[in-house]
Amino acid sequence: MREILVPSEARDLTDFSSHTPRNNRRNLEDMPRITFQPSGIVIDVAANTTLLDAARLAGVEIDAPCGGKGTCGNCAVRIVSGQVLCESPGVLTEAEIARGFVPTCHTSMQDSDVVVEVPDQAGRFGGQFSDDDGTDLIDAALLPSSDDCRPLTEKMNISVPPPQMGDGLSDLDRLTRAMKQQLGKEDIIVPLAVIRSLADALRAASGDITVTLIAETASASDSRDIRRYKITAIEAKNGTGRHYGIAVDVGTTTVAVQLIDLSDMKVISTCTDYNSQLACGLDVISRIDYARRSDRREELRTRVLRTINRLIEQSAHHDQAGHSEIACAVVSGNTTMIHLLLGLNPEYIRLAPYTPTVLDVPCFIASEVGIAINPSAPVMISPAVGSYVGGDITAGILCTNLCLDSDEVCLFMDVGTNGEVVIGNRDFLLTCACSAGPAFEGGGIKCGMRAAHGAIEKVEVDPGTGLATCRTIGQVRPRGVCGSGMISLLAQLLEKGWIDAAGKLKHSAPSEAIQINGRQAAYTLVFAKESATGRSIVIDEHDIENIIRAKAALYAACALMLKQVDMEFDNLGKVYIAGGFGRFLDLDAATAIGLLPNLPRERFHFIGNASLAGSRMALVSEKHRERQRRHARRMTYLELTTDPSYMNEYTAALFLPHTNPEHFRRNHIK
Amino acid sequence: MREILVPSEARDLTDFSSHTPRNNRRNLEDMPRITFQPSGIVIDVAANTTLLDAARLAGVEIDAPCGGKGTCGNCAVRIVSGQVLCESPGVLTEAEIARGFVPTCHTSMQDSDVVVEVPDQAGRFGGQFSDDDGTDLIDAALLPSSDDCRPLTEKMNISVPPPQMGDGLSDLDRLTRAMKQQLGKEDIIVPLAVIRSLADALRAASGDITVTLIAETASASDSRDIRRYKITAIEAKNGTGRHYGIAVDVGTTTVAVQLIDLSDMKVISTCTDYNSQLACGLDVISRIDYARRSDRREELRTRVLRTINRLIEQSAHHDQAGHSEIACAVVSGNTTMIHLLLGLNPEYIRLAPYTPTVLDVPCFIASEVGIAINPSAPVMISPAVGSYVGGDITAGILCTNLCLDSDEVCLFMDVGTNGEVVIGNRDFLLTCACSAGPAFEGGGIKCGMRAAHGAIEKVEVDPGTGLATCRTIGQVRPRGVCGSGMISLLAQLLEKGWIDAAGKLKHSAPSEAIQINGRQAAYTLVFAKESATGRSIVIDEHDIENIIRAKAALYAACALMLKQVDMEFDNLGKVYIAGGFGRFLDLDAATAIGLLPNLPRERFHFIGNASLAGSRMALVSEKHRERQRRHARRMTYLELTTDPSYMNEYTAALFLPHTNPEHFRRNHIK
Repeated sequence: MREILVPSEARDLTDFSSHTPRNNRRNLEDMPRITFQPSGIVIDVAANTTLLDAARLAGVEIDAPCGGKGTCGNCAVRIVSGQVLCESPGVLTEAEIARGFVPTCHTSMQDSDVVVEVPDQAGRFGGQFSDDDGTDLIDAALLPSSDDCRPLTEKMNISVPPPQMGDGLSDLDRLTRAMKQQLGKEDIIVPLAVIRSLADALRAASGDITVTLIAETASASDSRDIRRYKITAIEAKNGTGRHYGIAVDVGTTTVAVQLIDLSDMKVISTCTDYNSQLACGLDVISRIDYARRSDRREELRTRVLRTINRLIEQSAHHDQAGHSEIACAVVSGNTTMIHLLLGLNPEYIRLAPYTPTVLDVPCFIASEVGIAINPSAPVMISPAVGSYVGGDITAGILCTNLCLDSDEVCLFMDVGTNGEVVIGNRDFLLTCACSAGPAFEGGGIKCGMRAAHGAIEKVEVDPGTGLATCRTIGQVRPRGVCGSGMISLLAQLLEKGWIDAAGKLKHSAPSEAIQINGRQAAYTLVFAKESATGRSIVIDEHDIENIIRAKAALYAACALMLKQVDMEFDNLGKVYIAGGFGRFLDLDAATAIGLLPNLPRERFHFIGNASLAGSRMALVSEKHRERQRRHARRMTYLELTTDPSYMNEYTAALFLPHTNPEHFRRNHIK
Repeated sequence: MREILVPSEARDLTDFSSHTPRNNRRNLEDMPRITFQPSGIVIDVAANTTLLDAARLAGVEIDAPCGGKGTCGNCAVRIVSGQVLCESPGVLTEAEIARGFVPTCHTSMQDSDVVVEVPDQAGRFGGQFSDDDGTDLIDAALLPSSDDCRPLTEKMNISVPPPQMGDGLSDLDRLTRAMKQQLGKEDIIVPLAVIRSLADALRAASGDITVTLIAETASASDSRDIRRYKITAIEAKNGTGRHYGIAVDVGTTTVAVQLIDLSDMKVISTCTDYNSQLACGLDVISRIDYARRSDRREELRTRVLRTINRLIEQSAHHDQAGHSEIACAVVSGNTTMIHLLLGLNPEYIRLAPYTPTVLDVPCFIASEVGIAINPSAPVMISPAVGSYVGGDITAGILCTNLCLDSDEVCLFMDVGTNGEVVIGNRDFLLTCACSAGPAFEGGGIKCGMRAAHGAIEKVEVDPGTGLATCRTIGQVRPRGVCGSGMISLLAQLLEKGWIDAAGKLKHSAPSEAIQINGRQAAYTLVFAKESATGRSIVIDEHDIENIIRAKAALYAACALMLKQVDMEFDNLGKVYIAGGFGRFLDLDAATAIGLLPNLPRERFHFIGNASLAGSRMALVSEKHRERQRRHARRMTYLELTTDPSYMNEYTAALFLPHTNPEHFRRNHIK
């Protein structure tokens, strides 16, 4: 425990409070005030509130990638004036401590007013996304045909007879009678929000109306399926009649929303952005950690909804689609993301026996979930298989031959912060997940960044000098290195002999790029004068270790699955690689470092954001919804955390390319 | 059209704006500001906003009993400073206009800031309610027995097996399996709000939980009834286990809420208050008028919810019942009140062919409706029969022999602002409604007031001097006269010969109490020195006319119903009189003026707030819910507005006691 006391002279010099307007939250008890610089945002909070919580309350964005555990140091701010109580500052360097930095998650307010300076985090999560819909990457035979067009909601015209004096029928009675007589639909539910528009809609075009319907299937006691219909919108027939749906992929790192015209299944627009939960932890485990308090659970729910609703706004803008014209949604995400979106406690996902609250999620309505489309619209959540294999995977395999019940055994890998693997054919479907960690997305790497503008994505290393030549996304000056850049770099260093199979840099041969510091070494990719930031871009052996761990986790998961079914990589028909990552990945480099097995190139299929594409298919086609449900039920979930042989596979893969070089030929690299 | 220009000197003298804090709604366009005195409440509104709308926005209570049509003048305020545009000020007296009064509903803001003075309206809707539950008034044979105890929601204990590693089951899967295996319930719906509490509830007592359930019945295509169950709450079995429900009567004038312990059907508390919609119109027609704009519809919805939720708070306080422990609600009200509560457009109720949006209302959940109990709790609305015969009547007849399928023909009258009448036996049930107007509740009578503290409820008139001796509620100095006081007064004046059968005061005989003014006369009930207000309490011939119209409307409705079934009043077995009014009514006086037929006293049964009592029965007993549904369907609704013979009956009843004196003997009065 350490208390930072800023001397009163310093305080006088740096007291900003007289320049900032008093916040009206201030109450009679005179709670201490915290001012965040440079924004000048002010909030009064109770003593003992952590600075991180105070920032959240005030709406000040501070990243806490470790989920507030105090292990990453990323949430540090500099105390400008005032007294705070700092516990476990050990995560910061001596220099940082000397300059007055404290980790906000483990520092709390005392009685005094405080002014802090929040370091510039701009660009940390920046970057541009390509908003193409990725449909071109998927085998056309898997996409819904126009015959399959049976969207989640249907629009139907119906003519309701006019009211008659003394018939004793209300508007609702006349509607349900007409539904029965004209459409043969008996069991009709009309939510209050829809009834509110009924009277005026019926009278606008003499009873000619368009109803938006969803069929809900339930099983009766004699196991017979019963169809009940819920009306989710009513409009006069002379209305616009437009009928949209949205597909949503909620990833740990990124969220994608796609607007679809349900009349012809056309993609209107695709919008992608970072999940604003990123500030609360980079991977699902950090998010679960962060969510241990119910107010933070609510914060995470609000954050992801904010991202989703902003993307809906953007995508709807393309067609001037009104929110009420978006009639349904299909949402896919990993099990943790879905729990957080729905406001469910994710704690039990990570505690043995790893039991989520929901896997096969009932259909909710948009207003329950908080998604800003027609409030009565159904929101279908893709069914999950296990704690770490979610609906993003059951949606994803709709983009692969795995759902075609063929003989050929195929493998599906979704490479993200979490890595999920599915293997199977018509006879079996096996799935598991591993934690690759955020290294492939630039997390946990000191000069790492996401695959955005200025990120190094390809590297050439000179065999003689050891110096690197880099290509960046957008062909601009480099700002950092993304996952594919790291893979390219490692493959090059390995091929040119600058690192060994354990990922250690060559300490013996001299290169300007390698700096030796005792037993540790570091490699300079870009020197300060050539970088966009003015600081050199350096990778140390710890960074290399993180990449090796990530690739080992993924490879070991694949290897273990094959072993379970007594097969070799060579027996695989197709290998599908999903995830935004796949778009930048150099197959040869990935094989060279042992991330992927060395199979003939044509067996690999990069299918982009398969979760989003699969969600779209489920949105527009009853056949694909049925297919997804069926395959979700068929999948056998392997819990790796409880399987001791996984650790063996993982340890064996902690080399470049592998302890068993059988599947990896180094001379394969061009 | 008339513009009030306050001279700049006056304005300077009365400009309050410099003393009041500027409201932060003020924007760059510099909208004009209105200050309401004496509260000092300030709001900036767009030019052309009516002062009434400005008051609503600012939360300033101004009564507009005519619904803003500009016909009553009750919404008048005095302009202290500033320019306003006043249209049709004709409703105010010359003296009021001279003093600067304007009707707020027909006066709009211009460019200048305005200060207005709102006259003191305290006590106008004041008064105390007796909060007894009225159960003693109802025949015990009609009340649910302990065998009938089947509340709208049930609580059941269930033991959910613990999660097993690798069983592939979510918490929700385990719950639905246990529901099926242990309770035989198959088709289970669990709303998201309930799922949110599932994980923790399952783990708090090793899977022993208590679920609150509602059975929903739907009909399948083969006309077989299907039961589906919705879980509305889940708690660990070691929770309080308390299970409450509320019965709600939403009247045009008053709202009553009763808290019931569903485990033993005991009434915990009954709370009553005025419907805060009163400020927007005294009767249903004024409310429908007021609701013609959607923002005002929303205002009316919010107002009645505010009243209901405040009463829930009060009644829950008696047992320290938490909102989440209140598991269900039954709400009864006339068709217009239910439309306004649900946010439905009531316009078509009063336009031919008088078709409401809903009659038999589906079961909604509390959060949809806005009632502050467990958000997932079912809210059952009593089924209505027609535009002006609502669920209050189908609930009310549960308190009468009409629902016992007996031979005896009985009559049920609900005397309120609307009067509803039901007649029938096992063979037929006929119902109709008439607009008695607010006269019985003190509305439309210059010195009228509700049956509250200080209201004259009984009058004796001296045959010689014509002077009145009055008894008030609470035995305090009189403030005004309520409905029962008016009936008592009229009966006395008629008996003692001071008015004739047409309700005209005796112009010939001299009495200090009678003032003749041309062709009109007025009667002083209480002289200024004896009244609580310092002003004399005077009834003029116009007031008498209003009472005669009200009693004629009710009597004519009864008479027409009897004629329809070819019966006489003498054939009636029992006459039930419901409504708070019944508690104060002098039967002899009511018969003397021709409000009620002169039948043997024992045939009359005052049953108090039958709508509330019936709602309670429906809340606790499946048998009574079924009975209510069945009788609602059996009732034949007679639309009086379209029946020419009603006008004949009504005209015949516009005399004291009636043009046909057969059923009224004047010597009956003691």
